[in-house]
Amino acid sequence: MIKAGIIGATGYAGLEIARLLVSHPEAEITAVSSVSFTGMELQEVYPSMRDILEMKLQDDKAVIERSDVVFASLPHGLSEGIAAACHKNGKLFIDMGADFRLKNEDDYKQWYDGAYEDKKLHDEAVYGLSELYRGEIARARIIANPGCYPTSVALGLAPLLCKIDAGNIIIDSKSGVTGAGRTPAQNTHFPDCNEAFAPYKVALHRHTPEIEQTLSEISGKTVTVTFVPHLLPINRGILSTIYVTPLEKLSAEELYEIFKRFYNEDKFIRILPLGQTADLKNVKFSNYCDISLHLDERCGRVIIVSAIDNMVKGAAGQAVQNMNIACGLKEDSGLSLVPPAF
Amino acid sequence: MIKAGIIGATGYAGLEIARLLVSHPEAEITAVSSVSFTGMELQEVYPSMRDILEMKLQDDKAVIERSDVVFASLPHGLSEGIAAACHKNGKLFIDMGADFRLKNEDDYKQWYDGAYEDKKLHDEAVYGLSELYRGEIARARIIANPGCYPTSVALGLAPLLCKIDAGNIIIDSKSGVTGAGRTPAQNTHFPDCNEAFAPYKVALHRHTPEIEQTLSEISGKTVTVTFVPHLLPINRGILSTIYVTPLEKLSAEELYEIFKRFYNEDKFIRILPLGQTADLKNVKFSNYCDISLHLDERCGRVIIVSAIDNMVKGAAGQAVQNMNIACGLKEDSGLSLVPPAF
Amino acid sequence: MIKAGIIGATGYAGLEIARLLVSHPEAEITAVSSVSFTGMELQEVYPSMRDILEMKLQDDKAVIERSDVVFASLPHGLSEGIAAACHKNGKLFIDMGADFRLKNEDDYKQWYDGAYEDKKLHDEAVYGLSELYRGEIARARIIANPGCYPTSVALGLAPLLCKIDAGNIIIDSKSGVTGAGRTPAQNTHFPDCNEAFAPYKVALHRHTPEIEQTLSEISGKTVTVTFVPHLLPINRGILSTIYVTPLEKLSAEELYEIFKRFYNEDKFIRILPLGQTADLKNVKFSNYCDISLHLDERCGRVIIVSAIDNMVKGAAGQAVQNMNIACGLKEDSGLSLVPPAF
Amino acid sequence: MIKAGIIGATGYAGLEIARLLVSHPEAEITAVSSVSFTGMELQEVYPSMRDILEMKLQDDKAVIERSDVVFASLPHGLSEGIAAACHKNGKLFIDMGADFRLKNEDDYKQWYDGAYEDKKLHDEAVYGLSELYRGEIARARIIANPGCYPTSVALGLAPLLCKIDAGNIIIDSKSGVTGAGRTPAQNTHFPDCNEAFAPYKVALHRHTPEIEQTLSEISGKTVTVTFVPHLLPINRGILSTIYVTPLEKLSAEELYEIFKRFYNEDKFIRILPLGQTADLKNVKFSNYCDISLHLDERCGRVIIVSAIDNMVKGAAGQAVQNMNIACGLKEDSGLSLVPPAF
Repeated sequence: MIKAGIIGATGYAGLEIARLLVSHPEAEITAVSSVSFTGMELQEVYPSMRDILEMKLQDDKAVIERSDVVFASLPHGLSEGIAAACHKNGKLFIDMGADFRLKNEDDYKQWYDGAYEDKKLHDEAVYGLSELYRGEIARARIIANPGCYPTSVALGLAPLLCKIDAGNIIIDSKSGVTGAGRTPAQNTHFPDCNEAFAPYKVALHRHTPEIEQTLSEISGKTVTVTFVPHLLPINRGILSTIYVTPLEKLSAEELYEIFKRFYNEDKFIRILPLGQTADLKNVKFSNYCDISLHLDERCGRVIIVSAIDNMVKGAAGQAVQNMNIACGLKEDSGLSLVPPAF
Repeated sequence: MIKAGIIGATGYAGLEIARLLVSHPEAEITAVSSVSFTGMELQEVYPSMRDILEMKLQDDKAVIERSDVVFASLPHGLSEGIAAACHKNGKLFIDMGADFRLKNEDDYKQWYDGAYEDKKLHDEAVYGLSELYRGEIARARIIANPGCYPTSVALGLAPLLCKIDAGNIIIDSKSGVTGAGRTPAQNTHFPDCNEAFAPYKVALHRHTPEIEQTLSEISGKTVTVTFVPHLLPINRGILSTIYVTPLEKLSAEELYEIFKRFYNEDKFIRILPLGQTADLKNVKFSNYCDISLHLDERCGRVIIVSAIDNMVKGAAGQAVQNMNIACGLKEDSGLSLVPPAF
Repeated sequence: MIKAGIIGATGYAGLEIARLLVSHPEAEITAVSSVSFTGMELQEVYPSMRDILEMKLQDDKAVIERSDVVFASLPHGLSEGIAAACHKNGKLFIDMGADFRLKNEDDYKQWYDGAYEDKKLHDEAVYGLSELYRGEIARARIIANPGCYPTSVALGLAPLLCKIDAGNIIIDSKSGVTGAGRTPAQNTHFPDCNEAFAPYKVALHRHTPEIEQTLSEISGKTVTVTFVPHLLPINRGILSTIYVTPLEKLSAEELYEIFKRFYNEDKFIRILPLGQTADLKNVKFSNYCDISLHLDERCGRVIIVSAIDNMVKGAAGQAVQNMNIACGLKEDSGLSLVPPAF
Repeated sequence: MIKAGIIGATGYAGLEIARLLVSHPEAEITAVSSVSFTGMELQEVYPSMRDILEMKLQDDKAVIERSDVVFASLPHGLSEGIAAACHKNGKLFIDMGADFRLKNEDDYKQWYDGAYEDKKLHDEAVYGLSELYRGEIARARIIANPGCYPTSVALGLAPLLCKIDAGNIIIDSKSGVTGAGRTPAQNTHFPDCNEAFAPYKVALHRHTPEIEQTLSEISGKTVTVTFVPHLLPINRGILSTIYVTPLEKLSAEELYEIFKRFYNEDKFIRILPLGQTADLKNVKFSNYCDISLHLDERCGRVIIVSAIDNMVKGAAGQAVQNMNIACGLKEDSGLSLVPPAF
């Protein structure tokens, strides 16, 4: 049994990792920590976990000591120290935050207003988009788990990148409110949020450089995107509607074949039959990414719709998938979550 | 007092017209009809109207006889006969459906699979996007009330059309479920719809030719758009996120000025200060269209966000606004609806 | 025109009063205040009010000076000073909070852990349940606007009090989230609240003594109730399901007649025809209280269902109704709000 | 591996059984049927099941032939024939409908307007409230899976029945919309249902005799209850607030002990610590029933709050639990579902 610890276990992503690991056949949770609730029991903070995972919330140090794999779900800027401690002690470190995602420190400075203290540590880090970087993840000791939006976008665009105009990509994403985290705020206060809908950080969201980094790496050319996220009044899910212009005319069938072939071996990516449309209800609570493909023949555009559960494939599920890959387990171990549809 | 009748008063748009006219200082509802509920009282179908508008649901003929202005909210293909009867009897006819919106019959044939029986009648019809066709509406006897999506899109794009690449317009719209009408269906069944989110009729929605007709007319050139609607799990509202490429670089301030000047006299269009973002919660239950303007400086794009209540500015409110214009009343008479914010 | 001021205008109840007064034909808003946002413009806090009520948020003193009628929506314990200042200056004071509702100071001490500084002021205060205390309200200078739950309960029980077992009343109430106010908290954070449902403060809610005070006064005997509120994942509305045991057998028709007669003159109380059931959707955004009556013949119980919009009849609407009564206006002036049904 | 078949697999309860059995370590789904979609693939009706359970929808006969255990989720009146066929062929039959729940045929006649054709078959049937009838279920060949409301109520009341006034029980229940099934209807149409709330079938719901039958059986005396269900605008969950009067004064601690002891061995029943309150969010998507206990000391009442997921413990989960019991498997096999909390 792999000994897994969760730092920041009372945030949404942290609890979701706990929820998944509880049912994992080859891992067990050995310690959990929380800054806000240290000393309390996890089930006091989340009564949903009563009788399931009753465990005292400790400090970060205790988690690192007792675990082979450490998941950290922290505000950005706080992961480097944890990573260093894990690295030194030979623990696999999986970071749910943004600190190790951007390879170019300038991007991190510009978008997160921070700096890299220990640059070598960052050179060690592997970007954990499981389907695209499986080989590197298998050898990694520090894994930067991708952002939720970048996951939905990169999975939707990767197969087609070499066949489209890389300077003409528009991404209109919509996310459920868990994406904003557990801390109450005015815009996520129920009456302000319910029966409301709006974009936010229009063309200014921090996930933009992460999206562009992956797309540029995959395509081998500089990709710039217009990215506009919206807040959806639902709990879970990210749906990205992606508008691209193919360099040469593509039929719907060709499009479908390209995607089917690209994700041939990838259990968690479902390319929907032509004529169907990806919908959040079919992926929520699961690790699936559903992708549907559409042609606007009148305008010569391709529209890709990508749907994930932001807390699972967009966070905790992919983190467990990465743990599985890095630990040599079956990639889908503990991830056979059936989306409930309603 | 203007005598107003509503054909199809038990559909959502029909009831919304009733809700607005009840408080209208210069109009009174004289008759209402319904195919499904003829003979019943309106308040039996909608108990919300008890003590407010208690009136028997009659047949269409009775409505036309007793009214100066006839609103018809019917499935497409059924309005022509009503229009003819109104026209013959000198009644103002305001059609909530699609039958008189498209000037090119071929478009109607292609997208609605129908034909125009009485072409002269169609020549009489004026497209009722109040802010853009006020002069024609003032003289009209048949008014084609615009579709909900086309209203949100045309208002958002009209001021900028001559300054953007007309071949590169992407419209990502999201609509509340009232847009699907009152008849129950699987995709609008609560558990199928709640906590779900998806696009539908991707690049195939019938409002596409209506959008293009208006944009082409205003700009004087052929405009083609990629239009993708999504179903939002909320009751009311349409928010359109519109992506365009300006022909020449525009500053945010210039952009703002263009819109402010264009809608200078238009009480129902609110151009938000730079830095703010349009949100459905600020317009719902009102006749406002909120527009916010955003630059993606990295990609050289402008993003326009347009928000309306699909049942008010996108249907009944604009219909009353058109009645006011055509009848020589104050344009905002009966339309001082304050959006409740929560 | 009556000059009306709102203290605490950026809370939900405060803004709702503003929303209603904007359309009031005989009142105008002359000043608004806010502790948290003093110096800002109201429309900056609530963009929904742009172009409708653009007004600087001042301090409380300015509001009192410029108004004939002062509405105060404040946390409990803060109204007494405002009331004194208004009283001294001959202004009508309408308190949205709990400070003047309880006649017995011991109840206030026990349930709110506070004290009455100026007892004479409390003797002046009239409990503003409009339909039940109309005469006193007409002469009042300090009006304690009732709590939202007590409004729904007292209106539902008043007609039947003398015919039921006063020691056997069970009230199961469900409230929308606006009832918890505008300040974000964990239990009203969207993902914690949405798709959730639970009671809270079971048999311990502060509205209990207020309910019992009214019921005891009306019936002339000591009434004790079991009161359990629940948090509903919707924005607006309180529905109370009230279980009582009649002293003598009552037929459904007798029951209906008792209520119809009791509320004969009351425009805002709608007694639904037998066989219909009160539903929040038919009252939201309006000042109506819908009441439906049901018999459990097998158990000899009567079940009364009472539905209001907690922000309107349960707060701002009733406050305006009280202003109308106290100022000698038509009772429904500015309150012809048509519930939109969807 | 147990061979399990599902009749009516495209209804909500049928699909939920499929969702659970897919992950069951000791059962496999061998056949599924549907009246409305015979001949189609399950994943065409429910795209959520793509790659998970791709199986043709057959007729009922095929399901019976290929299965050891047959689950039937049908409108009432249709299960008897299936039960007979299963019985004859030695298959375990688990009925999700009401046909075998009521032991007194007169009750069935009165509340369901039907009759028992084959009375012997009904004598064979065991009422499948797992925690209360475990012994009988273990020997059963026909299991009547309980209704969702009766499950939440009986589990909440069973431990206390002998200590309360059996003639004074009030049950105020609230159910999510999946309880109404998959077929679209006006009252479950999203805009009619969302942001709405009301009771229905007040004191007239068909689950009343089922509740009374269980409570009477357990207590050994005739129990009559007032039962009022409400429709909650959420997908899943039933919360029952139950008001009872203890025969003798009970302290909170005694109350807690009674429940803890009663459910000592029952993994799926969680008695919450005093001071906590059952909430649907902590049980949804799981087989747990959370029960919280409250005293109204002022009125001498006990309030029991019971929360389940109506589709799991209230339907499919309990059905699988019953299969496990009847087949000699571990009772929680395939049911280790962790409620996701958000």
